[in-house]
Amino acid sequence: MDLESITTDVTNRDWQHVEETDDPVRFAMIGIGWWTREQAIPAVQSSSLAETTTLVTSDTTKADSVAQGVDSIKHAITYEEFHQGARSDAYDAVYIVTPNAKHLPFVETAAELNKAVLCEKPMEATIERAEEMVSICEQSQTTLMIAYRMHTEPAIRRAKELIDAGYIGEPVFVHGNMTQPIMELIPDPDQWRLDWELSGGSAAMDIGIYSINTARYLLGSDPVRVSGMAAAESQPFDDVPDEHISFQLEFENGVFGLCSASQNAHVASHIRVTGTDGQVRVEPAFFPWDDRRLHIDHGEGTIEVEFEQIDQMEEEFEYFAHCLLTGTEPYADGEHGLTDIRIIKTAYESADIGEQQRLET
Amino acid sequence: MDLESITTDVTNRDWQHVEETDDPVRFAMIGIGWWTREQAIPAVQSSSLAETTTLVTSDTTKADSVAQGVDSIKHAITYEEFHQGARSDAYDAVYIVTPNAKHLPFVETAAELNKAVLCEKPMEATIERAEEMVSICEQSQTTLMIAYRMHTEPAIRRAKELIDAGYIGEPVFVHGNMTQPIMELIPDPDQWRLDWELSGGSAAMDIGIYSINTARYLLGSDPVRVSGMAAAESQPFDDVPDEHISFQLEFENGVFGLCSASQNAHVASHIRVTGTDGQVRVEPAFFPWDDRRLHIDHGEGTIEVEFEQIDQMEEEFEYFAHCLLTGTEPYADGEHGLTDIRIIKTAYESADIGEQQRLET
Repeated sequence: MDLESITTDVTNRDWQHVEETDDPVRFAMIGIGWWTREQAIPAVQSSSLAETTTLVTSDTTKADSVAQGVDSIKHAITYEEFHQGARSDAYDAVYIVTPNAKHLPFVETAAELNKAVLCEKPMEATIERAEEMVSICEQSQTTLMIAYRMHTEPAIRRAKELIDAGYIGEPVFVHGNMTQPIMELIPDPDQWRLDWELSGGSAAMDIGIYSINTARYLLGSDPVRVSGMAAAESQPFDDVPDEHISFQLEFENGVFGLCSASQNAHVASHIRVTGTDGQVRVEPAFFPWDDRRLHIDHGEGTIEVEFEQIDQMEEEFEYFAHCLLTGTEPYADGEHGLTDIRIIKTAYESADIGEQQRLET
Repeated sequence: MDLESITTDVTNRDWQHVEETDDPVRFAMIGIGWWTREQAIPAVQSSSLAETTTLVTSDTTKADSVAQGVDSIKHAITYEEFHQGARSDAYDAVYIVTPNAKHLPFVETAAELNKAVLCEKPMEATIERAEEMVSICEQSQTTLMIAYRMHTEPAIRRAKELIDAGYIGEPVFVHGNMTQPIMELIPDPDQWRLDWELSGGSAAMDIGIYSINTARYLLGSDPVRVSGMAAAESQPFDDVPDEHISFQLEFENGVFGLCSASQNAHVASHIRVTGTDGQVRVEPAFFPWDDRRLHIDHGEGTIEVEFEQIDQMEEEFEYFAHCLLTGTEPYADGEHGLTDIRIIKTAYESADIGEQQRLET
């Protein structure tokens, strides 16, 4: 393991061999809320392999201001028009960033229109709908990637390289946490993230999924057992089980995960893998605007690797476009995303009945 | 909350008002293994309020070399002689540091002899024996303190002050971990820490207790529910359930603890409390030879407080002696210690049957 190359070239895109194209992947953005406007569209603008051409929205008048200053955006269509196939010659792929319970119909239409799909996580609000999404994409041979930006986050990717190379020995524990004060960030008690029908759950679905999925990614394996404990103490969380939630996970070979997420706590995030010979920690880890740091402990002391902030969404769009341009299957396919939905839903069940639950593998 | 006074005077002994005495508390050390020799006796030598006068051991010839250079040590007696009351005029208190399952008889004798007791954690190997210890000390009005050195560890104590003052808002999650490679530290497969009868469990009893107890201390409350997951994968751990163990804890008011411990992993330790307005973390936390650091996050960034290494055992002996000299009840009494035994034993049961377990409070 060449620690020096990892720590001096942290932001290396090891997955990339095509760096430019005359024929970028053209995206339709489905849903133009703040995340699309402030994160996704600017990220695609910076990308060399992708461009945004089309906005799909309930409110095409809002689309005008969103399109301002982004020359590549040529069309704004309604959800209904999207489902009718309008302007489908203007885009190659869709990015779905609507409320969780509304992902599936857009994937169905995209599959019919022969478009590739980048769908935000969690992929849907229930196991059944997530399974249906997988099935539709398999049958139609639609490329489906679930938008886990940690898989192309350099600090996380370097941590995985260290782990895979045996730098920390055999992993033993993963601790992870992501917390935010959702009602301060979005001061609306009627927001969809607090609405069970639209979200399928709150802290776990919105941010708990980061620790769980990144633990799976770093270990390269999936949990076989989960215990969930959840609490919804304050009024805005009346409709969901999880203002706060904790996950106790068992992976194969006696490796345990301990993950937590809260929609009503200080902004904080970390993930840590402790092994037989060392420890790696990324902290802060998950929020796109944080300065990520990689902390490596092996032997006498800790190395703290700082590096220039990259745009997590740019990395993700570039990776997905790279997959499409090179005919490569994306890492986080539908089955990968479905596993997280099963873990989270089984954790809710566990919290409800007070029993640890086996997970199908 | 005066953050500056906390961070500039980290090692302040806020509990101390008597700093010297002509009449130090005289200790009999029961068990003279490496911990007593290398940690406890030097700590008492540095203490202003305590001295070691007596060694109690199975091997009084070994006692001679232990006593060398420690002028205050005047007597070495066998376990049998101790139980017969030999030299009991030479000491005021005992420090018990034998294998877990052998604590109780020494407490019984100490109670009969009217001696105060500082007993290593975990206080005994089973709930029943721990309950008996509490009962004996209550009936005989024997002062019993369980030796949780984190309660007088300055970094932990300052973290508690910050939490109690509301600096991080309401606590939401506690993450804790302590791991070590026991077979590298003590390369003997027949050591008592791997023997169920003598230890009552391995990773949880020996080191998991640090995270659990420090979580209780920092939150000022006890868990009401626990889920345990444990694994014993390699041969030296055949007799115990826990080479590795994880604890998922629920405290009152939707506060969750996520703690882990391993006897076969890299030396590492931390404890972290995430609250509604901030976060405190002590890392490294638990090993006496580590440079402890207090990491405080509240608002924009993280303050990292380094401070001069103190001797955790000196703090603990000084605190216990201070309690005895001032007639103060020690914080960690028998009931306090018993709660940890109940949590750990219930976690083993939970791991065994795959169900979360309610804890009596």
